[in-house]
Amino acid sequence: MKEIRLNAFEMNTVGHQSPGLWAHPRDRSADYTDLDYWTGLAKTLERGLFDGLFLADVLGVYDVYAGSPDAALRHAVQLPVNDPLLLIPAMAAVTEHLGFGVTCTLSYEPPYPLARRLSTLDHLTKGRAGWNIVTGYLNSAATGMGMAVQPRHEQRYEIAEEYMQVMYKLWEGGWADDAARRDRQHRVFADPARVRRVTHEGEFYRVDAMHLCEPSPQRTPVLYQAGASTRGRAFAAAHAECVFINGPNPHVVAPQVADIRRRAAANGRDPADVQIYTLATVITGRDAAEARAKHAEYRHYADPEAALTLFSGWTGVDFSRFKPDDELRYIETEAMRSALASFTSDDPNRIWTVRELAEHVAIGGRGPLFVGAPDDIAERLIAWVAETDVDGFNLAYAVTPESFEDFVTFIVPELQRRGAFKHDYAPGTYREKLFGPGRAHLAAPHPAVQHRFI
Amino acid sequence: MKEIRLNAFEMNTVGHQSPGLWAHPRDRSADYTDLDYWTGLAKTLERGLFDGLFLADVLGVYDVYAGSPDAALRHAVQLPVNDPLLLIPAMAAVTEHLGFGVTCTLSYEPPYPLARRLSTLDHLTKGRAGWNIVTGYLNSAATGMGMAVQPRHEQRYEIAEEYMQVMYKLWEGGWADDAARRDRQHRVFADPARVRRVTHEGEFYRVDAMHLCEPSPQRTPVLYQAGASTRGRAFAAAHAECVFINGPNPHVVAPQVADIRRRAAANGRDPADVQIYTLATVITGRDAAEARAKHAEYRHYADPEAALTLFSGWTGVDFSRFKPDDELRYIETEAMRSALASFTSDDPNRIWTVRELAEHVAIGGRGPLFVGAPDDIAERLIAWVAETDVDGFNLAYAVTPESFEDFVTFIVPELQRRGAFKHDYAPGTYREKLFGPGRAHLAAPHPAVQHRFI
Repeated sequence: MKEIRLNAFEMNTVGHQSPGLWAHPRDRSADYTDLDYWTGLAKTLERGLFDGLFLADVLGVYDVYAGSPDAALRHAVQLPVNDPLLLIPAMAAVTEHLGFGVTCTLSYEPPYPLARRLSTLDHLTKGRAGWNIVTGYLNSAATGMGMAVQPRHEQRYEIAEEYMQVMYKLWEGGWADDAARRDRQHRVFADPARVRRVTHEGEFYRVDAMHLCEPSPQRTPVLYQAGASTRGRAFAAAHAECVFINGPNPHVVAPQVADIRRRAAANGRDPADVQIYTLATVITGRDAAEARAKHAEYRHYADPEAALTLFSGWTGVDFSRFKPDDELRYIETEAMRSALASFTSDDPNRIWTVRELAEHVAIGGRGPLFVGAPDDIAERLIAWVAETDVDGFNLAYAVTPESFEDFVTFIVPELQRRGAFKHDYAPGTYREKLFGPGRAHLAAPHPAVQHRFI
Repeated sequence: MKEIRLNAFEMNTVGHQSPGLWAHPRDRSADYTDLDYWTGLAKTLERGLFDGLFLADVLGVYDVYAGSPDAALRHAVQLPVNDPLLLIPAMAAVTEHLGFGVTCTLSYEPPYPLARRLSTLDHLTKGRAGWNIVTGYLNSAATGMGMAVQPRHEQRYEIAEEYMQVMYKLWEGGWADDAARRDRQHRVFADPARVRRVTHEGEFYRVDAMHLCEPSPQRTPVLYQAGASTRGRAFAAAHAECVFINGPNPHVVAPQVADIRRRAAANGRDPADVQIYTLATVITGRDAAEARAKHAEYRHYADPEAALTLFSGWTGVDFSRFKPDDELRYIETEAMRSALASFTSDDPNRIWTVRELAEHVAIGGRGPLFVGAPDDIAERLIAWVAETDVDGFNLAYAVTPESFEDFVTFIVPELQRRGAFKHDYAPGTYREKLFGPGRAHLAAPHPAVQHRFI
């Protein structure tokens, strides 16, 4: 049986994918400013043999709803949102195997310092760094940077393509593997003949400098991507090693998976070299009754306005203009049709109201919500993998860290019993853990490889 | 007696202020990629009641010597150099009181994401963050960013002035103190009426956005500055709370201190609200003989070429063009005269050779090197403070962490015995520890205060 991969899906913020639930008495997401929260979470995840912790980020606010950030502030809808990168060193210090996929928006930061920062992260984690490549999608981030609006979608990916070339040159092309000799006896730290200047003259970036870091265990961190658009998938098929997607049911998810694998193959890559994680939220307990009771209790804290604030940000459609009983099929805009495709195709004949959408989004966001006994959940996750060909799940919390603790306590053993989950971490770096021994570095035909300094 | 302040002076690099000594068998600076090294150091410093750890940084390489980075690579002269910020969260997790002053170059990063990153740091450290404001001084960093040369000195400070205005607006002006209500019962995280948009339209920056972070314990981190130029001192007198200077003897240091305090007073600030730290290196042991033996042993690893590589980068003068016996007085350039002023004024009649300069720089850089028994060193440090009016020392290592461990073991008790060093940390944030109770936030007439959202 295929071994299921597991990421925890988190963000350096109060309410991540469960708008309103920060107010639940057992939810600790409002402790996001405490390192203790994060180191405790990391230890829980490593105890549960999670492959990685995936940290989302937005450099902006959800201000589409009612044209203002007020609802986001009131309900803590991914706001405040602190820098994700700074969480990782403290978590790395208390774990040995857990991988870290961190979202860094490339649109507003030049490649030279970001390459150094991510090399540093890979060094400090001893090769457990992953980078979720994001071009940004909130206008509010662009105005923070002094732009009137963000660059249009297509140009963002052109910028991203060139950005990656520069990053590869710095990470793979600056220092040869044997450059840092660290020879105390002959007092030679690095061999200058094995280090070279990185030059780049492109449309958006110019670099003429030495990469400041000696080669880190993985050189290029494990590359994540989450763009669902056609252009985003093309980018993922070229660059990404892990792709994060979402959809409420296998019928929506399976074609995305097939398309990404097809595109990767068309680029000459082994389709298995792109691992695909889909969003899911699990509420469980000792048995089905306990899970259902927990779900009922959680729902009491779910907030419809908070959910619509989140959904308005994702879609660009201001849901404050609609009434709870409005039927979505009458909300006829192109953006809406595209945004709602994932929900309506669940059952093409079902008529959704705004209220139902809000309830759906409030726990689990754009992914499925699994509520049930441990054996039941395990079977359903395994069935999802079989039906969709995903490699695993990006698990959001309803209430944190309770959702993750419950998963580790109840679901992981059930998956293990069924041969669908590992009993130990594989040795080596994050990339080796995901793709096998000898795979610490990217391999041909990945585009990074052509820039390598042999 | 005035209580002496102590910072450890470090950098996320191999050889910091002791070029060549990375090869010493007990030196662990080549372990800069191990979090264990940093968490161990932080615990040592907190055991010794150090006020802070000051992390230097350069986003570039020392390539003035022989017009190439080869010597810097060979001798690990502040190269490789990794990102300093990522070290702090792991150190913060194992300490409770130690402050962290981190160097971030503002010239190549927009204020909006940096303000968020430093707010995040202040949250995660529970108010122990300090920011060393640097405009960059190596051309190699500018070429990494796609510029032909860096902006000229004067313009860098104009940019920095405007940058600070934006940072203050974000840190002090975005959220009122009572904005984040965190009221679970009424399910109100933040009060939108107490959060406002930050707008700025200047010559170099435009911002129209909400600061993404709720108020951190200090809001604005403790502000460090290290520019020794006239323009740098004017900037420090306006903005800095801690200033880092250097000079080989009290005659060179005292006028700098007086000038900075005079300028602060001219800005309406209490001169005592600017704490001044001067560079020093200490080699000690159980007694004078042990200290001298250690010094002799260290000198065996000091490397003249490495020292001149460092000094060439600081001064912009390529010392590879000179012979060891060349006398500095004949190296007649304006840059040299200015760079060497601090050395030659030690004894105006002394004739320095290039070799002697290299030996001097190799351990202790531009600051004094104190070698001796604990009581002797303590007396000399106290005398320095009396003669110069500095508040304390930025202590570089000769061999790390040995130099810091020796200082904690041998010198701290001697200073305490003389009433010149605290016996416990003061409570509160970094700013309160440095400036007293009730001083968590900046106070008038500091320019940050006018931007505050009351």
